[in-house]
Amino acid sequence: MTTPSLIEELVAALGADAVRSGDAIDARYQADWSGTAPVLPLALLRPASTEQVAAALRICHTHRVPVVPQGGMTGLAGGAVPQLDGVALSLERMNAIERVDAAAATITVQAGATLQAVQEAALAQGLLFGVDLGARGTCQIGGNLATNAGGNGVVQYGMAREQVLGLEVVLADGTVLPMLRPMLKNNTGYDLKHWFIGSEGTLGIITRAVLVLRPAPRARVSTLVALPDYASAIRLLRRLQARFPGALAAFELMWDDFFSTSLRWSQMASPLSQAYPFQVLAEVTGHVEADLAEALQNTLGEAMEDGSVLDAVVAQSQAQARALWRIREATAEFPTHLAPINFDISLPLDQIDAFAEECVQALTARWPTQRSFRFGHLGDGNLHLTTDARSLAGGISLAEAEHAVEEIVYGLLAQRGGSVSAEHGIGLHKKPYLHVSRTPAELAAMRAIKQALDPLNLLNPGKVFDLHPFATKATP
Amino acid sequence: MTTPSLIEELVAALGADAVRSGDAIDARYQADWSGTAPVLPLALLRPASTEQVAAALRICHTHRVPVVPQGGMTGLAGGAVPQLDGVALSLERMNAIERVDAAAATITVQAGATLQAVQEAALAQGLLFGVDLGARGTCQIGGNLATNAGGNGVVQYGMAREQVLGLEVVLADGTVLPMLRPMLKNNTGYDLKHWFIGSEGTLGIITRAVLVLRPAPRARVSTLVALPDYASAIRLLRRLQARFPGALAAFELMWDDFFSTSLRWSQMASPLSQAYPFQVLAEVTGHVEADLAEALQNTLGEAMEDGSVLDAVVAQSQAQARALWRIREATAEFPTHLAPINFDISLPLDQIDAFAEECVQALTARWPTQRSFRFGHLGDGNLHLTTDARSLAGGISLAEAEHAVEEIVYGLLAQRGGSVSAEHGIGLHKKPYLHVSRTPAELAAMRAIKQALDPLNLLNPGKVFDLHPFATKATP
Repeated sequence: MTTPSLIEELVAALGADAVRSGDAIDARYQADWSGTAPVLPLALLRPASTEQVAAALRICHTHRVPVVPQGGMTGLAGGAVPQLDGVALSLERMNAIERVDAAAATITVQAGATLQAVQEAALAQGLLFGVDLGARGTCQIGGNLATNAGGNGVVQYGMAREQVLGLEVVLADGTVLPMLRPMLKNNTGYDLKHWFIGSEGTLGIITRAVLVLRPAPRARVSTLVALPDYASAIRLLRRLQARFPGALAAFELMWDDFFSTSLRWSQMASPLSQAYPFQVLAEVTGHVEADLAEALQNTLGEAMEDGSVLDAVVAQSQAQARALWRIREATAEFPTHLAPINFDISLPLDQIDAFAEECVQALTARWPTQRSFRFGHLGDGNLHLTTDARSLAGGISLAEAEHAVEEIVYGLLAQRGGSVSAEHGIGLHKKPYLHVSRTPAELAAMRAIKQALDPLNLLNPGKVFDLHPFATKATP
Repeated sequence: MTTPSLIEELVAALGADAVRSGDAIDARYQADWSGTAPVLPLALLRPASTEQVAAALRICHTHRVPVVPQGGMTGLAGGAVPQLDGVALSLERMNAIERVDAAAATITVQAGATLQAVQEAALAQGLLFGVDLGARGTCQIGGNLATNAGGNGVVQYGMAREQVLGLEVVLADGTVLPMLRPMLKNNTGYDLKHWFIGSEGTLGIITRAVLVLRPAPRARVSTLVALPDYASAIRLLRRLQARFPGALAAFELMWDDFFSTSLRWSQMASPLSQAYPFQVLAEVTGHVEADLAEALQNTLGEAMEDGSVLDAVVAQSQAQARALWRIREATAEFPTHLAPINFDISLPLDQIDAFAEECVQALTARWPTQRSFRFGHLGDGNLHLTTDARSLAGGISLAEAEHAVEEIVYGLLAQRGGSVSAEHGIGLHKKPYLHVSRTPAELAAMRAIKQALDPLNLLNPGKVFDLHPFATKATP
């Protein structure tokens, strides 16, 4: 009933070019990269300023119309998929890099800037932004912050949260919180910005941010290391962190099921002399490449002497380093070779291998032909397990297979107190399993906060959790 | 009216030894290090477990009695000072170091453990806890987290917040939030722990924590550097961060008013050849002391060539390093030599010197005899300005002097969007000036959250802000 008036008011406030409806809404605003079914919203809003975002939210608030914020739509959890009875609000026109302050080592950006644009603006000043992930060219910084993105830089620089000095956020009723302060230290009441980072657009819409930059390392050296067992991988992690404090930039563990499959797909010979149970791809950063490579060789040499490392290759050029990284990046080819059922799990470090093994055994017990691949950001305690749905016997559909595998994996995870989402977020996809990783008391506290900041439940409603616990599945 | 029954119920739940009242409450529970007038609470509770904390809060909740949580009482903002009509709850008996997990590089502690106990337990395993401050032997980790402590380690490791993996928190009604998960990555709904860190005990009582540890650096080298101007200090900061990424452990700027006074008090000759406008005390960490000292010498040599460094001394031994640090640590002697009015301010890095200069000029215009001392953690954007109340003419009381100086300093700070509390928190002392650093919209959001998590306003009420805006001074 309110739609015609709503659209008219939005057009009056934002301009006709910022409001689209029906067929004018391109497919890319209707779904994200998660495979969720596309949804056509009431309207797509493309505000060009914080004031327009605030105006749009005020109008939607008056009309009691839900608003789903959208970044680059690269999410893997369905968190930015629109809803039929609401508007989608894309930040894509707010894509300015407003200021790089090299002396202060900060960058001020609008939420719709792509991650890559932020990275490049920093690099132009010899500085580095600490978040990096495969979708860098498409994902937007606002989405990275709203989901507290992880990715490649976490072991060295922390999650997206740790790169944020200040935020500008618009609340459900259009109130602007102007928290764009560039100070590292600011203990003046609750540090509100942390409430919005990782809240997946359910508490406010991030419109601008002041981010920390770091000196760009002058040298990087990569190594591929073969290990006899999982405990040796943890020992190597600590050894490298002790020898290269603050300078371990990657520590990616590949079980042999992943490693040998990746080599087969790429028809590449192993850089190592034979097959091993575990491989780690590590990278350290430093000042002078030759010194760094020598220090790395020496450290690996010590580890070989005590038997905790079986073999190692240190890249002698950037071309060799890229070749090593291609082994790990075979994950991008999963959709080509498999019907992947992906997990993004974190666990206490000492439990990851036992858990991964348990999963493989339980899946094999159910489907003797199952094929799973294990790899992860071990430095961050993050396991990515992928099961090929096509390898599961019984002619079940992909959706059925996914559900059945999730039940097994998350059932085992619940027993160990692990996280169902290390870095991808909850969105719609993991909502049924949120209770695996959060107690009822925590979920009640989240709901209380949501109700305090968005009492009408208009911001990205139904994502992460349902406001009324009765609407949530009690058990998976 | 409810007191007799309240005390009886508390004794029944916690045991007689955990409940004290009247004269049995030692003076140290009645005030903190801020100089706030002591207050005798209704009762002092000393629970020995999370269950007892929860039981105490349930009982106080039933009786509608306020609860003021207490750590080591070393705070400088009055945040843990009790109130007449409430109970004080000290965490001091919950002081166990529960577990150091060297492989995972984590430590699990109870809130009442002193910072020093946490540091020592980590060091015993070759690991380092990233928070350090002068009160380390007395302050408690729960208080460090509740106030998001800063201190000496911030430039290298970040604030207390960034050392936290998991927390256990008890809410006002006695609900326990068991968020003691040790994972670095865990994007499962709102990251609730961040809501409690830095909230100064107004949203929940922290009872246990899982903290990040780092490899303890094998080598540390300190240097005292003389600089021609403030811009050169920022250039040196960036130069050292670029050359020693992640390894700059301190970058303390001393204006000459502080530096020369410190030398005079200690009757120490300057390690530098003459007087300079600015001195920086910097420390870098690394692997081999000789290599580190050489790299530092070379880097300072480059800076001397371009004129941005005028003179420098690199400590050749730990004894020399300690002598350099004693210059900076003269702050501990302020109460001996001065009637100090202390500020804990942060500003965008490029504004600190201009602001500090402005303050000195405005104070001099009002009191030509005023003496102020400027120093700070420049790497963190944190300025500590101290004015000697005795240097202010006019025979005003210390309280009057403090108020008059605060009006001038915070008035100037407001124009620059600075923070009235970089690391000490708001508590009672800075409550009248919170609005300098936070907008009405932000304060309204804070109040909404306080009401959502503590609707009866029982947890540390009246600290940080008053729940009803009408009770807050509108302007300083």
